[in-house]
Amino acid sequence: MKISVCRKAHFNAAHRLYNPAWDMAKNDAVFGLCNNPNFHGHNYKLEVWVKGEIDPETGYVIDMKDLKELIKTEIEDRFDHKNLNLDTEEFKELNPTAENICYVIWTILREKLNSKFELKIRLEETERNIVEYSGE
Amino acid sequence: MKISVCRKAHFNAAHRLYNPAWDMAKNDAVFGLCNNPNFHGHNYKLEVWVKGEIDPETGYVIDMKDLKELIKTEIEDRFDHKNLNLDTEEFKELNPTAENICYVIWTILREKLNSKFELKIRLEETERNIVEYSGE
Amino acid sequence: MKISVCRKAHFNAAHRLYNPAWDMAKNDAVFGLCNNPNFHGHNYKLEVWVKGEIDPETGYVIDMKDLKELIKTEIEDRFDHKNLNLDTEEFKELNPTAENICYVIWTILREKLNSKFELKIRLEETERNIVEYSGE
Amino acid sequence: MKISVCRKAHFNAAHRLYNPAWDMAKNDAVFGLCNNPNFHGHNYKLEVWVKGEIDPETGYVIDMKDLKELIKTEIEDRFDHKNLNLDTEEFKELNPTAENICYVIWTILREKLNSKFELKIRLEETERNIVEYSGE
Amino acid sequence: MKISVCRKAHFNAAHRLYNPAWDMAKNDAVFGLCNNPNFHGHNYKLEVWVKGEIDPETGYVIDMKDLKELIKTEIEDRFDHKNLNLDTEEFKELNPTAENICYVIWTILREKLNSKFELKIRLEETERNIVEYSGE
Amino acid sequence: MKISVCRKAHFNAAHRLYNPAWDMAKNDAVFGLCNNPNFHGHNYKLEVWVKGEIDPETGYVIDMKDLKELIKTEIEDRFDHKNLNLDTEEFKELNPTAENICYVIWTILREKLNSKFELKIRLEETERNIVEYSGE
Repeated sequence: MKISVCRKAHFNAAHRLYNPAWDMAKNDAVFGLCNNPNFHGHNYKLEVWVKGEIDPETGYVIDMKDLKELIKTEIEDRFDHKNLNLDTEEFKELNPTAENICYVIWTILREKLNSKFELKIRLEETERNIVEYSGE
Repeated sequence: MKISVCRKAHFNAAHRLYNPAWDMAKNDAVFGLCNNPNFHGHNYKLEVWVKGEIDPETGYVIDMKDLKELIKTEIEDRFDHKNLNLDTEEFKELNPTAENICYVIWTILREKLNSKFELKIRLEETERNIVEYSGE
Repeated sequence: MKISVCRKAHFNAAHRLYNPAWDMAKNDAVFGLCNNPNFHGHNYKLEVWVKGEIDPETGYVIDMKDLKELIKTEIEDRFDHKNLNLDTEEFKELNPTAENICYVIWTILREKLNSKFELKIRLEETERNIVEYSGE
Repeated sequence: MKISVCRKAHFNAAHRLYNPAWDMAKNDAVFGLCNNPNFHGHNYKLEVWVKGEIDPETGYVIDMKDLKELIKTEIEDRFDHKNLNLDTEEFKELNPTAENICYVIWTILREKLNSKFELKIRLEETERNIVEYSGE
Repeated sequence: MKISVCRKAHFNAAHRLYNPAWDMAKNDAVFGLCNNPNFHGHNYKLEVWVKGEIDPETGYVIDMKDLKELIKTEIEDRFDHKNLNLDTEEFKELNPTAENICYVIWTILREKLNSKFELKIRLEETERNIVEYSGE
Repeated sequence: MKISVCRKAHFNAAHRLYNPAWDMAKNDAVFGLCNNPNFHGHNYKLEVWVKGEIDPETGYVIDMKDLKELIKTEIEDRFDHKNLNLDTEEFKELNPTAENICYVIWTILREKLNSKFELKIRLEETERNIVEYSGE
């Protein structure tokens, strides 16, 4: 019997979308305003979903205080109030699209999370654009 | 490795629920206020979920500008500020319940979308009533 | 000492915006898609704000059960699942814009509400369009 | 061809998290403020998702009026404005964590719902903590 | 020139509404389910609005870190995960209706806040019931 | 008789908070993470409230298509996907706090809007931080 629990978090960051292998004209054509060399930014809303069995002693799948702390240490401290392109190791060589940010967050948390749990990440870049990844 | 991306949109439409094979009394019993012959209406909120691999050159599953344009051309232009029963081909013979609207939108977009993508539609008719279809 | 309390409600209705004194071309120019002769519709979200003194015996400004019932009887039963243009007395001669609907709701509730209370109505026609009226 | 429909509901309840097999110090260590012997409370937001085929006569998977009534009778009347630990049979011996509440609601509705339908429950305890169970 | 800034916060608490001067029958008639002697609870959402001039050196009306800390110390630590009737001084003799909680929060913060600022409190008890007080 | 109408919009931008008259230590002490020299960013949500009389011919206070276009031309085109500090005239010398952004937007729209209307701007920098200005 498996149940899913979710903890929400958020971080505010600047980024620029572009491919350094392309010239400015092609980057503008593909990424439009998102290719502004001076960056723009978002309030990213994060949902971390953990699936597992209920511990009969606590009634918890996972202690939410532990999950909250893990998200703070591994994700918020790393990305909040940062320039994703300039301030982070993860996006030095990787285009910080919502898809790639979601995949990177999943990879970071997957390593830290007990392997008995399934993990799904949902990331809202704006109210209209959302990404989900579950390790498939 | 597969990731899901979502674009949100919306359209405002009038509709009436009824089955022309039934008399008014049975339609009232089944559809209640939704059988008002003069129609009522909703703000429909639409989520279009596309699942596929991340393109390593762009970092995108699909270009959101293209998806946004596809939704505008195929769904918003067709249904926004329309009477679903009177103004659309799709619901001339089909009862425009949230379930059927969701299924119709999935069918329209499935034809236009590259077959390498999986597609899921989520449609909110009201804040309390939601429908999802993924082609199962 | 005056405090404000709010009760939320909602109704789903069809409407058409047009001025019968104008021809179709002018109505189209002014009201655009909202002038569809077959109607379109919305989920209207209503906030009824009542301002007054706290009753020391109950700790209430007004009993929310009474306010909820008043909104149901006077507003929801009148407008929910209706065609505002065809099914209601209020909009037989009055263009059912969000402004006019808000004003009409304020007028209806003002008559029924004890005069010791101040009244403000907030009406959301869509997530992006909102109207407020407080009797000024 | 299977489609999912959702009806939302809510209930407001008090609860306390603790394990009677542990002493107060261990309960405080595990459950923190949630172990307040005088209880605290939440606005629980519930989503009931039912998956099945569209009935060709109605265009419905399930009549939302029936599902709304089932949720009212079985869940809202049982838990709304209650102390989950003291006022309910279900949590006399079971710790009322969000996980256990979600599982209990699924079990109650599963028994009442036609077996041709799949059932998923989503429960928001706070805006930041959510649980989902689908009978896996 | 005066501008308003708002900081949001929240607390989860149990309460019971009743007037000890009345018998149970009258309390039931007035407060209904809210008079459950075993308590029920809510997620209270709080907005603290401070109005003043923009400091030309910082561009702030008030430092949000200070306002956030003030709300945490004075309101969240006092009311979060508490039974308002049993665990707080403020509601030992005062019925913890949304109106009275809003007024009490305004009074607590008014004393701590620099008198050059205007203060308004908005408190959501549920999504449908909201209260506002600004010291009028 | 005066009624208020609101149009919502949004823009995504990068910014950095600091006072060039101060050294880095003082800027860090006052602005914390917001003083990141590489910038961070937000999804700004904008509400433009216009108050005036209802035009008896249209039933509108102001044509929402005109207001939407004004916001697009004057605000979205100017600030969306921009670095407020580097890409805009308005914040070359002015610290782009939420308060100052709100004031600047009010000033820009006040000049363009017919003087018969009252104007109020509400700006959400994050879900927890909001600013309002109405020209007082």
